[in-house]
Amino acid sequence: MGAGAATLQEGTVRIAIVGGGASGIGATGAAEQTNPDAEVVMFTAFEDVAYSPCGIPYVHGRDIDSFDDLFLQTKQFYLDRGITIHYETVVTSVDLNRQEVTTQKGQTHGYDRLVLCTGFDWVPPDVPGNHLDGLHYPKNIRKSMEFDKILDEAKTAVVIGATPLGTEMAGGLAKRGLQTHLIDPHSWILSAIADPDIVEMVEESLEELGVTLHPGTQLEAFLGDGSVTGVRTSEGEISADVVVVCDKRRPNTQLARDAGLAIGSTGGIVVDAHLRTSSPVVYAAGDIIEIPHELHNIPIQGLTGSHSYAEGKVAGTNAAGGDRRYQPVSVPWGLVAGKWSVGGAGFGENLADALGIPYVMGVGQGISRARYYPGFKPVKVKLLADPDTHALLGAQMVGGEGIKERADFLGMAIRKRITIEDLATMENVYAPPIGAVMEPIAICAQNLLADLGRRTAGS
Amino acid sequence: MGAGAATLQEGTVRIAIVGGGASGIGATGAAEQTNPDAEVVMFTAFEDVAYSPCGIPYVHGRDIDSFDDLFLQTKQFYLDRGITIHYETVVTSVDLNRQEVTTQKGQTHGYDRLVLCTGFDWVPPDVPGNHLDGLHYPKNIRKSMEFDKILDEAKTAVVIGATPLGTEMAGGLAKRGLQTHLIDPHSWILSAIADPDIVEMVEESLEELGVTLHPGTQLEAFLGDGSVTGVRTSEGEISADVVVVCDKRRPNTQLARDAGLAIGSTGGIVVDAHLRTSSPVVYAAGDIIEIPHELHNIPIQGLTGSHSYAEGKVAGTNAAGGDRRYQPVSVPWGLVAGKWSVGGAGFGENLADALGIPYVMGVGQGISRARYYPGFKPVKVKLLADPDTHALLGAQMVGGEGIKERADFLGMAIRKRITIEDLATMENVYAPPIGAVMEPIAICAQNLLADLGRRTAGS
Repeated sequence: MGAGAATLQEGTVRIAIVGGGASGIGATGAAEQTNPDAEVVMFTAFEDVAYSPCGIPYVHGRDIDSFDDLFLQTKQFYLDRGITIHYETVVTSVDLNRQEVTTQKGQTHGYDRLVLCTGFDWVPPDVPGNHLDGLHYPKNIRKSMEFDKILDEAKTAVVIGATPLGTEMAGGLAKRGLQTHLIDPHSWILSAIADPDIVEMVEESLEELGVTLHPGTQLEAFLGDGSVTGVRTSEGEISADVVVVCDKRRPNTQLARDAGLAIGSTGGIVVDAHLRTSSPVVYAAGDIIEIPHELHNIPIQGLTGSHSYAEGKVAGTNAAGGDRRYQPVSVPWGLVAGKWSVGGAGFGENLADALGIPYVMGVGQGISRARYYPGFKPVKVKLLADPDTHALLGAQMVGGEGIKERADFLGMAIRKRITIEDLATMENVYAPPIGAVMEPIAICAQNLLADLGRRTAGS
Repeated sequence: MGAGAATLQEGTVRIAIVGGGASGIGATGAAEQTNPDAEVVMFTAFEDVAYSPCGIPYVHGRDIDSFDDLFLQTKQFYLDRGITIHYETVVTSVDLNRQEVTTQKGQTHGYDRLVLCTGFDWVPPDVPGNHLDGLHYPKNIRKSMEFDKILDEAKTAVVIGATPLGTEMAGGLAKRGLQTHLIDPHSWILSAIADPDIVEMVEESLEELGVTLHPGTQLEAFLGDGSVTGVRTSEGEISADVVVVCDKRRPNTQLARDAGLAIGSTGGIVVDAHLRTSSPVVYAAGDIIEIPHELHNIPIQGLTGSHSYAEGKVAGTNAAGGDRRYQPVSVPWGLVAGKWSVGGAGFGENLADALGIPYVMGVGQGISRARYYPGFKPVKVKLLADPDTHALLGAQMVGGEGIKERADFLGMAIRKRITIEDLATMENVYAPPIGAVMEPIAICAQNLLADLGRRTAGS
């Protein structure tokens, strides 16, 4: 049954959206587009909407000139489209029975359809000093603008958490010329999504850029008197002019919990394929929901900005009477760190081991252009597949150009149960400036099959 | 039944390979790897093997420093691996009954397995003057080296045929500083593989680079007295210091025809999925064979260098007792022309119309990086799908980075009958330096579905 099957009341449909991040913006635009006659109202706790927080590390690193570049639309743009945005307006409660939200200022606003897009919160590390002034949690653009001014005077930085954002931040700060330390309790960076053999090149490149990596290092305290001046770790103290925390996040589900919406095992809001919550007129999207993984159907939580935006569009479309489904995810991911791109989709070796998922695995290395064309780069590929069906379970890649597009491809390959045999026989473009005679994905898949053949022959 | 099921004779297996291009090299390497004890002998009419002709336009254009860079391996490399190569040795006949080949010098050589990799020949345009000295047909590397020296003195060039190679050559010669004319009877460049709306940007860019395009122009004669000094066309005469012909090719199947091997409707050698010809111990690969298209199973002929190499590997593996199949093709393709990449897979609008294949179609435009990240480029996508199932029939793209990888992806999507709905809901990497929040392929697929929805609603 489509979302559109739910009967809307007579008269102008009132659609309320709480949250102005990627999912809120996606929902607002899609709702307005699906039903231009609807009354679309957004509430955001912040001064701005429609900017790209993902660009922040690159402004710090001076790859992007200005924070102004990160704004997608002006406030006037939404006014012109008849969308009302209440800025700096915190929604404090949702009444599911009365179908209304209440703001911190005590105002109530009725809705026919509600879309919750309240995003994530950083979890302060549970160590002494975690409320010192100056600790920077990258999220809000205005705070990042202030932080960027501080960077002009700073010489040393500590980044807590070799997460994707932490890794991008460390790279950006080092590019900016700061002596930068990246602290993480795991033995390698990006450990939640990538395997050590894949990030090895990235670690080397970050170090060349001026990032001092501190793997296997526990944060024990933030140091300082009033303002943070450094950290104490299991491996010693590091003083720093700035300390950035990019470690744990949690979905900001307070409103949803208080309202009584169903919360899942991950802590995210439970939604159906139409991104409808346990209340039939309430949708949710972005970092507050959990979504089934394409493989094994396990709910997962806290995906990427493109997921948030796409979920917002699905929720907004459905809230406005449309009918779109959101697919289970295989989560293609990617980032640039140092001089390399790194990315993948589905399960890595480390994660598959942790979950007890059986797999066969292969690695292969190719190049991004013809070997005789200037500027070619290595592309290392690692593929995991089901031992019986050989359907792709996961992929990780590091190296030169095309990592993003390959990750997208392999994300779809996981969804469609494409096999290693398929990938070993894939056709590929050979054009000297943009592609080599052999595609690295195919090389890896062929290696995996050859290895399986040897194992079979030897058994 | 696998190729390996054919019984090989006692003793050392003799594998003969005729032709030293991409398919011959692929076959030779794979045969040696599959059966290191085999006696592998290659015959080539030329002075060299193991170089990449695809790089030639880029040496002329000075993107690649030297022809030396195009050589993949030294002659010693093959000697060291125990592979005998007879250079400058034309094979003049194959005796299928006696299982032997005869060379121009009258020597015979027996084989247990034969792989024919004799490639393509240029077809001289059927106009007066087509045997004038100096007409250059790019293929052999030594002739290209000589031609490159002539370019040092040349100021004007005419390229006949806006084929992929002709387009690359025209771009390379213009980059080299020559006033370059590209002559083609069709209304747009790359007409055999791409639609006019896709190549429009490419045409503009070639003109900016200094290529004068002559679409809709018939070649009427090569002009000159002894040596070529220009061309006469339906639109007038053009004098030129050099004239390059990149128009029609034909498979070089003379040996195969004379031997009595089955030839298909395209003029290519008929092979099965193991690339075996109508003779059970003779394989063929590369530009001389025909291969079924993934869609509709129509045999097609004259694919790309990566197809030739991959086919060679399959044929060589099977000739040496292995068992590999070559899949039907959807032919991902791509090239760089001017400042853009252009590529695709499967059927374009023009080709689908010509073949009478029904389709629905959509176009969309996205960008290659975040819109706020320096250097982002447009990526225009056009998708064709089956009107009933919405399975992808073809894709064409033009613009920035990632065209090659997207073409590879969409080639596989055609093979796996992936639908427009799948592509509209694909996940994608969003990372500012390498990918935008919305993937251009998904934008195009969403546009197509929206358009279908409107058509359905209006019907």
